[in-house]
Amino acid sequence: MAKQSYQAPTGTRDFYPLDAAKRRFVLEAWRRASIIHGFEEVDGPTFEHLELYTVKSGDGIISELFSFTRDGGEKAYALRPEFTPTLARLYATKANSLPKPTKWFCTPTTFRAERPQRGRLREFLQWNVDLIGDNSPQADAEIIATCVSVLAGLGLTPQDVRVKVNHRQALADWLTSRGLPTDRHGDLFKLLDNKHKMPAPQFAQAIAQFGFTIEQADVFQKGIVRVTVDEVLPTGQKTDHVVDLTYFSEAVLPLSKELVAAGIIDWIDFDLSIVRGLAYYTGMVFEVHEASGAERAIAGGGRYDNLIELFGGPPTPAVGFGMGDVVLSLVLQDRGKFPTDEQVLELAGLRPDVYVLSNGMPEAELQVKPIVAQLRKLNIHARSTYKTTRNVGKLLQEAASMKARVALIVESATHATLKNLTTGEQTQPTPLPQAIALLTQRPA
Amino acid sequence: MAKQSYQAPTGTRDFYPLDAAKRRFVLEAWRRASIIHGFEEVDGPTFEHLELYTVKSGDGIISELFSFTRDGGEKAYALRPEFTPTLARLYATKANSLPKPTKWFCTPTTFRAERPQRGRLREFLQWNVDLIGDNSPQADAEIIATCVSVLAGLGLTPQDVRVKVNHRQALADWLTSRGLPTDRHGDLFKLLDNKHKMPAPQFAQAIAQFGFTIEQADVFQKGIVRVTVDEVLPTGQKTDHVVDLTYFSEAVLPLSKELVAAGIIDWIDFDLSIVRGLAYYTGMVFEVHEASGAERAIAGGGRYDNLIELFGGPPTPAVGFGMGDVVLSLVLQDRGKFPTDEQVLELAGLRPDVYVLSNGMPEAELQVKPIVAQLRKLNIHARSTYKTTRNVGKLLQEAASMKARVALIVESATHATLKNLTTGEQTQPTPLPQAIALLTQRPA
Repeated sequence: MAKQSYQAPTGTRDFYPLDAAKRRFVLEAWRRASIIHGFEEVDGPTFEHLELYTVKSGDGIISELFSFTRDGGEKAYALRPEFTPTLARLYATKANSLPKPTKWFCTPTTFRAERPQRGRLREFLQWNVDLIGDNSPQADAEIIATCVSVLAGLGLTPQDVRVKVNHRQALADWLTSRGLPTDRHGDLFKLLDNKHKMPAPQFAQAIAQFGFTIEQADVFQKGIVRVTVDEVLPTGQKTDHVVDLTYFSEAVLPLSKELVAAGIIDWIDFDLSIVRGLAYYTGMVFEVHEASGAERAIAGGGRYDNLIELFGGPPTPAVGFGMGDVVLSLVLQDRGKFPTDEQVLELAGLRPDVYVLSNGMPEAELQVKPIVAQLRKLNIHARSTYKTTRNVGKLLQEAASMKARVALIVESATHATLKNLTTGEQTQPTPLPQAIALLTQRPA
Repeated sequence: MAKQSYQAPTGTRDFYPLDAAKRRFVLEAWRRASIIHGFEEVDGPTFEHLELYTVKSGDGIISELFSFTRDGGEKAYALRPEFTPTLARLYATKANSLPKPTKWFCTPTTFRAERPQRGRLREFLQWNVDLIGDNSPQADAEIIATCVSVLAGLGLTPQDVRVKVNHRQALADWLTSRGLPTDRHGDLFKLLDNKHKMPAPQFAQAIAQFGFTIEQADVFQKGIVRVTVDEVLPTGQKTDHVVDLTYFSEAVLPLSKELVAAGIIDWIDFDLSIVRGLAYYTGMVFEVHEASGAERAIAGGGRYDNLIELFGGPPTPAVGFGMGDVVLSLVLQDRGKFPTDEQVLELAGLRPDVYVLSNGMPEAELQVKPIVAQLRKLNIHARSTYKTTRNVGKLLQEAASMKARVALIVESATHATLKNLTTGEQTQPTPLPQAIALLTQRPA
């Protein structure tokens, strides 16, 4: 009978040690940036009641979900496609006893039942950062700064990636002033959000229905509507734009000042064409893109002041963003910023602190296992061979191939030498307790 | 309209910051023990093709799974109830290019569609540690030592928990020598595995069908069949047992020597009644229990030399175990070994390195946000207030309630003082760059 072979489901990933170490590298960067900005970790179930997802997104979301029921008429569940509904549920449940503001982050696995494409898998990690209970531009800026902190910490620069910022309310005010009724804004936002997926003539025709000229359509689609910081700040020069910046400047001026104070204004483009598809944003919105426009958005978010109430909580302002691991990793690779495999493995702790061997004498060899056990009890990453050879040269080769920092060579029942495998330096034979003490003094 | 409130699905957990910090405490203990013992992290998808789970466990497993299909005739999937099938798939796929032995760990979320009870949820974390490609007792001992390393690292002692070790092949050989046909062993193993769930008379009656006396039934059920290390090691005294220890002693003698070398023999009970329910174990099996018998098993595992082949790989010996976070946490709480909330939060990094405030002078206040931003760029956990008050006393109270280590008080446009919030010590006004440099010299 031919052996059957099994594969991972389409759009999911297997993580062998190097893959898992790379994922951990990204996770740790997310985690550290969250913590130094004062966010605390939360999490929820991997699956929720299906109805939690239709509250915010309507029944249209169901086809994009992995949903299931249990036998015996239990309720329907779905794997989480995003964390925000869980976050809103958590906050709404304990709103009265939580601090103001509440600052939460999470790095959950999330799931989309879509056709997998470059940068879009069916299972991926999404970093979520949310600041709840504060409606100030300072909160908006702090959210963007936390996002930029990870990008900078991973070695990306404002030349590699751009943070495109817009303001949903400013855009809405401008559209209203142009005579577009509020109930048609959503349709226009959807169109703007899909602008890169449409040929120019088709986009121009579609946007004409909202009262925009071909020239304006071109500007929206190409993103040349980008507004510089100087134009937004009151000291700056206003240049002529095919769109009216008045509403926009008013809305983002306080935010701009906060972004300057946070030291991240270099990363920012104000871009009137960024709307974010999701209907629930109420103020500032932003997306992070690779500078040349390659790849999908690295991150996206904004202010959502009505959502907590929608999930049964008190009216509560909130701002946050999500960043997936798939596109981020692609951009780091595109830009040559991902650490080498060796660096990633070392960062994951996979480089042994010490490799223990003996000189082959039976009384020395007897000490190897107990010494390895003793070192591990002292929280030291210790290894020894699984091979049958006791040839010192071959074993030291194995130690070097594992990138062990030090070799402890047992020379007798009572003494060992330590060999620094980077410099080649070797100690005189030392009593075993002393040799072990020398190892524990090294930074682990 | 009354507001709707939403709950997490039955048997799943919400993790508010303290809960998430406790979970991280356990995860980090697992991770560190894995790494110092030379295991490398792997992972797979959260859901797999349903058939991956029936390979090992038969169709009987389906009712315990959260399974689902996608519209359009795609294959059936299931949330992973355990990691071993994924591990076997990963190994079988790349068996030829993987090192011998391959040492892997994983800390996945796993799912069981059972009725939730104390110590048993529908979603939980399970630490998996596996050593593949080595059939030696040394490998068996290393797996048990890695498990004990976490228990000891979490502050548990051999008085708190016991590692109960048995040998499936030794038990089978003994049963065969007693005349029980091989094809009936599985039924007896199942009965032994359920011994604690049955009243004594019922158990005695059931085990009588396998040729055991009431006296022997009592011994099996109460676990007094426990064998001491001295009886197993050849130097030791043999005492009379109602069961024949000959086969057992032969099978576990080499393992016992390795457990002595690994320095963990104090934790071990040899217990003939431990069989592990899963049919696929082929040699050593073990379970970790709270010493008084409270709670479910903390961990369980053993040798499974036929499994990799079952998943399409070459014949490959393997040994491993799983430990869930739910029972472990209950035992730590029962035994008073869980760190205090304050300790857990500090270990999770949630204690700020510095709290930045000003003395209230406008030119000093203007520096607060840029300094916070600068400190965070230096990877320092920095916070400031969201309150409108600029009263130094009130702000220092807030800093203390956050458990910040240091307060940086901006005194002018150019100078600041540093106040150690543990000792109360305060510096003289210092130029800002120097004050920041002092902070970065502290261990972060």
